[in-house]
Amino acid sequence: MRLLEERIRKDGVVKEGQVLKVDSFINHQMDIHLFNEMGKEFKRLFADKNINKILTIEASGIGLACIIAQHFDVPVVFAKKAKSINLDGEMYCTKIESFTHKRVYDVIVSKKFLSEDDHVLIIDDFLANGCAVAGLVDLVRSAGATVEGVGIAVEKGFQQGGQLLRDKGLQVESLAIVESMNHETGEIVFREQ
Amino acid sequence: MRLLEERIRKDGVVKEGQVLKVDSFINHQMDIHLFNEMGKEFKRLFADKNINKILTIEASGIGLACIIAQHFDVPVVFAKKAKSINLDGEMYCTKIESFTHKRVYDVIVSKKFLSEDDHVLIIDDFLANGCAVAGLVDLVRSAGATVEGVGIAVEKGFQQGGQLLRDKGLQVESLAIVESMNHETGEIVFREQ
Repeated sequence: MRLLEERIRKDGVVKEGQVLKVDSFINHQMDIHLFNEMGKEFKRLFADKNINKILTIEASGIGLACIIAQHFDVPVVFAKKAKSINLDGEMYCTKIESFTHKRVYDVIVSKKFLSEDDHVLIIDDFLANGCAVAGLVDLVRSAGATVEGVGIAVEKGFQQGGQLLRDKGLQVESLAIVESMNHETGEIVFREQ
Repeated sequence: MRLLEERIRKDGVVKEGQVLKVDSFINHQMDIHLFNEMGKEFKRLFADKNINKILTIEASGIGLACIIAQHFDVPVVFAKKAKSINLDGEMYCTKIESFTHKRVYDVIVSKKFLSEDDHVLIIDDFLANGCAVAGLVDLVRSAGATVEGVGIAVEKGFQQGGQLLRDKGLQVESLAIVESMNHETGEIVFREQ
């Protein structure tokens, strides 16, 4: 998506250690106009899918998911990072490893909000190693629901997550895929799509 | 706001210990249509204010804030619960006590996203003791910015937060104010507004 790539080139900041900061428009301050354009593009990319729910994970995916949801006219459910596992049987649980925070989270969704009738679009702001999305796929499948697709704002194409998920047959659509970036020059190369 | 009160009566669940669960439409599964109606109402309530930014706190305020932001045509910034205080001077910091989680969080906003030119509407899903909103007010004022108002979905009118904030001269608008509730009968009484 040209608009997002241009915005990343303009306002994204490449930091040492292959870190791409997009906190001025995606995941700390949020540009709602841009999110709406992304929503239109996801609607186009998943036009043939019968989606009735969007699933994301707290925190930075939530805003994007809510704006995108308007283009599909569906509710959003966000998975929560649990302080402690709820053992009362009311929750679907999975574990997600965060490389950023160097820890493993228990992640939960109430059984009330995912069922076998659901056709789910998973939304997140970033895809790198793919652990968060894999965890969300696991939650959807625990409920007997169907993953119709995965929509990502920014994929780090030089990490393995996108490839692993596509190899499993999932339709993964990333609006910008970074092939490489250089923190000394600030240069960012996007994959042609 | 009649629509929200009716929805709380229909789908809210009163639990022991003065807990009101609205997780099927506000803070776990999110009804985007309802959020848009709330956005219209906040726009009406704050029509005379010149708002250029919305501030909320992760996680459950983010979705609501993003949908509301469309009605004001402004960006959203969400304050983050920090794992550890960032001492490099790039962040405004405050402390917020969470009674739900029985702990104190360090909460941060990047200095890049709040400045003395900002006229801020604070948005959150719940107002009870008011600690979260007071922390957000503190962050806005640390930046030399102006708090134009506070927009809340559900206020627990029998707790002191709303009164404390209004006593400080803040315009606090809560779309539903619960005066009392009974977990045995399920009855919820709203304040007349």
